[in-house]
Amino acid sequence: MLPTILDLTSLKEAYGAGLSPLDLVEEIITRCKASDDPAIFITPTSPEALRAAATELLATAPEPNSLPLWGIPFAVKDNIDVAGLPTTAACPAFAYHPEEDAAVIARLRAAGAIVIGKTNLDQFATGLNGTRSPHGAPRSVFDRAYVSGGSSSGSAVAVAAGLASFSLGTDTAGSGRVPAAFNNLVGIKPTPGLVPNVGVVPACRSVDVITVFAATVGDGIAVRRIMDGYDARDPFSRDAAQASLPSVRPRVGVLDGAEREFYGNSQVEALYNAAIDRARSLGAEIVPFDYTPFRQAAELLYSGPWVAERLAAVKDFLASNAGDFDPTVRTIIEGAKGYDAVAAFEGKYRLEALRQKTKAEWEKVDFLMLPTSPTTYTVEEMQADPIVRNSHFGRYTNFANLLDCAAIAIPAGFDGDGHLPAGVMLVGPAFTDDALAPFADAMHRAANSGMGKDRKAALPDRSRVTPEAADVVPIVVVGAHLTGMPLNHELIGKGGYRIKAGRTDGSYRLFALPGTVPPKPGLVRDPNFAGNGIEVEVWALPPAAFAHFVQNIPAPLGIGKILLEDGSHVSGFLCEAHATAGARDITGFGGWRNFIRAANASA
Amino acid sequence: MLPTILDLTSLKEAYGAGLSPLDLVEEIITRCKASDDPAIFITPTSPEALRAAATELLATAPEPNSLPLWGIPFAVKDNIDVAGLPTTAACPAFAYHPEEDAAVIARLRAAGAIVIGKTNLDQFATGLNGTRSPHGAPRSVFDRAYVSGGSSSGSAVAVAAGLASFSLGTDTAGSGRVPAAFNNLVGIKPTPGLVPNVGVVPACRSVDVITVFAATVGDGIAVRRIMDGYDARDPFSRDAAQASLPSVRPRVGVLDGAEREFYGNSQVEALYNAAIDRARSLGAEIVPFDYTPFRQAAELLYSGPWVAERLAAVKDFLASNAGDFDPTVRTIIEGAKGYDAVAAFEGKYRLEALRQKTKAEWEKVDFLMLPTSPTTYTVEEMQADPIVRNSHFGRYTNFANLLDCAAIAIPAGFDGDGHLPAGVMLVGPAFTDDALAPFADAMHRAANSGMGKDRKAALPDRSRVTPEAADVVPIVVVGAHLTGMPLNHELIGKGGYRIKAGRTDGSYRLFALPGTVPPKPGLVRDPNFAGNGIEVEVWALPPAAFAHFVQNIPAPLGIGKILLEDGSHVSGFLCEAHATAGARDITGFGGWRNFIRAANASA
Repeated sequence: MLPTILDLTSLKEAYGAGLSPLDLVEEIITRCKASDDPAIFITPTSPEALRAAATELLATAPEPNSLPLWGIPFAVKDNIDVAGLPTTAACPAFAYHPEEDAAVIARLRAAGAIVIGKTNLDQFATGLNGTRSPHGAPRSVFDRAYVSGGSSSGSAVAVAAGLASFSLGTDTAGSGRVPAAFNNLVGIKPTPGLVPNVGVVPACRSVDVITVFAATVGDGIAVRRIMDGYDARDPFSRDAAQASLPSVRPRVGVLDGAEREFYGNSQVEALYNAAIDRARSLGAEIVPFDYTPFRQAAELLYSGPWVAERLAAVKDFLASNAGDFDPTVRTIIEGAKGYDAVAAFEGKYRLEALRQKTKAEWEKVDFLMLPTSPTTYTVEEMQADPIVRNSHFGRYTNFANLLDCAAIAIPAGFDGDGHLPAGVMLVGPAFTDDALAPFADAMHRAANSGMGKDRKAALPDRSRVTPEAADVVPIVVVGAHLTGMPLNHELIGKGGYRIKAGRTDGSYRLFALPGTVPPKPGLVRDPNFAGNGIEVEVWALPPAAFAHFVQNIPAPLGIGKILLEDGSHVSGFLCEAHATAGARDITGFGGWRNFIRAANASA
Repeated sequence: MLPTILDLTSLKEAYGAGLSPLDLVEEIITRCKASDDPAIFITPTSPEALRAAATELLATAPEPNSLPLWGIPFAVKDNIDVAGLPTTAACPAFAYHPEEDAAVIARLRAAGAIVIGKTNLDQFATGLNGTRSPHGAPRSVFDRAYVSGGSSSGSAVAVAAGLASFSLGTDTAGSGRVPAAFNNLVGIKPTPGLVPNVGVVPACRSVDVITVFAATVGDGIAVRRIMDGYDARDPFSRDAAQASLPSVRPRVGVLDGAEREFYGNSQVEALYNAAIDRARSLGAEIVPFDYTPFRQAAELLYSGPWVAERLAAVKDFLASNAGDFDPTVRTIIEGAKGYDAVAAFEGKYRLEALRQKTKAEWEKVDFLMLPTSPTTYTVEEMQADPIVRNSHFGRYTNFANLLDCAAIAIPAGFDGDGHLPAGVMLVGPAFTDDALAPFADAMHRAANSGMGKDRKAALPDRSRVTPEAADVVPIVVVGAHLTGMPLNHELIGKGGYRIKAGRTDGSYRLFALPGTVPPKPGLVRDPNFAGNGIEVEVWALPPAAFAHFVQNIPAPLGIGKILLEDGSHVSGFLCEAHATAGARDITGFGGWRNFIRAANASA
């Protein structure tokens, strides 16, 4: 029996226990038929095509779980090309039949994943609410009166309803995050350029990002890692290393004062406050910051020349088919006609000036935690005031791509009567996609709100995201670099932070090296010695800083692997054995700090 | 007696030997009076103000050379604010009186430098030739019939004529490099955003860069380091670390095939070829590359929407003062009126697509070496066809800021009859400003063409730029990482390159470690042992790669400092002594390669 929510861990376990992809696709077919939301798909994959895909998978990779996404069903927003299915962008007159998969689809299919259909969206991905489509409005899985969020409306609902393990959205203003909040899902919004956009209908080409809706952070990150990687065919594709964040006591920026705006929705505000409390209890340092320059940048996306990118994307089609547009979408896109090239550059200047202001805020925090959407509306409410109420949803999302951020939207629990969910979003600087994940996952687990429509579901332990993913290098220090010791500043000055205190395995001896300034010990392993271990600290350094640090270590000290009492091997200070000849063996003190204390006491 | 060219080293030596800044300013006053070029300055600093500046310097920092630019005279392009002098951009009607120094002027003055005047330019920095000014055209210091190059015309001539030690230009299309080529100077063009533009009249604000004209690369880099550093008031200011380049056997990209265009100037072509020969003799690997995508990007600067930035900079003034513009400059700027915001974004898409194409070329080379300008013209020739002939000058310069490059223009000798100089330009990826300098300096010295108008001047040895600036980390390898050995790919795969082969000091022993896969030796120092040393190789790794490399070294191996036979201490592989107990001592083989060879021969 498959669970309601088809998270990767549960489905892989089922495959490992004998489930066949042929069974899986029958289950998907059954669930789709039983769905109470007729607006999720624009073009579902036909039952025959689903069965053929499963059969083909079994022919090419018969071993269960022999590919990273072996037999994993996923849904695709209908502005991303899937060969064999039309791409419509929710505008039937615009439809075309792509011959090739989008770059990400090709990568996901090569990894064994199966496309279950093309999903509904706000037309041309212009909207954050899900009602701007001729195919109807998908609904929140928790209350059909309410919007699903958009523009990636159908993709979010497909996962939340248990029709797919994950789905793809796109996110220019927040389309990969707002629907996650409204459907109790995780939304992974990569740094712009990390995931290539080849084969995507552009909204604002310079800031469009393909996103993942998933049941857990671990699932979403695993899928994103299969999709990402440089592709020269995408002008905005980038080839950059992931950046690091502190994995211990991160400084988390939260809304403050007048910038706390929930449009009267005290339920969402309460859930945001509860998320702040959870972050604190998970070890974060909570830092109120000034959202003003972020908000001002956000406002540029629709109230500035960037709408010209939307026009650039469809201008020929608009010239011949204006009547085929959703009226709201058309109003927005035609608004671009007033901007000349001077205005476009002036918009860029304004954005860059705001970016400099946000830089001062980034100095105070490691990442931000914001409400994903400050409120929600019923479909009826949205349709009554479609532009203003849509803009409310984007208040905290619109800046992220303009300002080159990574973001992960996570569930933040349900309102007081357990009716509707809300979400929070961790937002970090460019290429902190991986580094944000462990804290996002911990927050999601602490929210205890299930996955998608199954609010009682337990998050599988195997999908947990551990901080090792963050790109810092651990280093064991033994002597003058310990906290409070004379060379500790070298670690702090290079951006280092302490991970933990610990002890070596019992096979190490410590010597006071004669003639060292400041005084230093030498740690030497002797597998035949059985002592009590030596007190050490494990610090983290960014890789480049680690390299320079190692370069500056004088002989006879060096960096080897130190066996700690927990059995792990971690890089750290060792001493060439020849240098300990004649040196005082201070192993009995248990560590350098005790030895120094004793020496000072007797001096 | 001061030399003709006032390079920093010579002037500092003179100050050290007793010259007073008061003497210096009198010399400058005399030289300016004697100058045969009346078009260099728009607003020279008055003799009284020069004397006052020298007096003030002596009052605040009486000790000679007690500030980095103590009493160093410099000229400033008249689109950069200097408090106390008008800023005109070579348009008298546009003139204003800035109350504050531009950010770079404040930094240079704080370092002790003295402003000798505001120099002539192509109006609004729109041009590469120096004839587009109501103040007349500065001339090549080698032949008054010829253009000086522009737009930073007066600044280049001031240094080349010995009126200033260095000068500031600005460079959007090549204005900080072309005049260097025509006047036998070094032109330092920083990566966009490295030097803040606060207090500069914009040309194309998103790609404007402040540059340095100097007599030597060392002088130019020293000045640039005083000017650079993040300033939040400039929307495009950036806060990034310098990038590294190989300091040994760099791969230098050179023009090839149809992209070799000198507009019939065989003299400049011959000088370019000679520069390629010099680069090869200095150890470079010469790599022909495809200039096409760079040229196509270059063409966007004037034949695309970027001209709208020039309009954005002056549109209010143009509306009221069209008649005050140089006719050519006005024609160019008014050309922007045809572009709408859609075109601006489409230009951006085109640029980004070309950037991806250039990326494939960057994979083949470490930096490019291009002609600075492929030809030159007389003032008369230029005025006869001012737009087309100007565009010839920019053929190899226009792309550099659009594609986020660092560049250093250097002299490349004189044409066959010793009449006019030409230059070449090293162009590297963003933030290789420092890393390009050692090779640029070596090339300049090898060209043996003097400094500025003094073509016999010897470049001072003390201004030499050494490769230590380049940020790579050396590592000594002893065993499985040697060239041709099983783990050598780990170094190459991380961007490593071999610096040299060598030997350790005689105090090391080598052991064959039992049970290692692939087989590995262990190097251990024994200061009491006097052997013949062990064969090693020194490799270079980028810092982040070094960090990951060290992380992956398993116990009992580690990285310490190895004493080489030349007496240097370099990071490299050592082995914990306990692991050599019972291991075979293979010191007698002289190195791992010999041991493996012998083992294979006997097997």
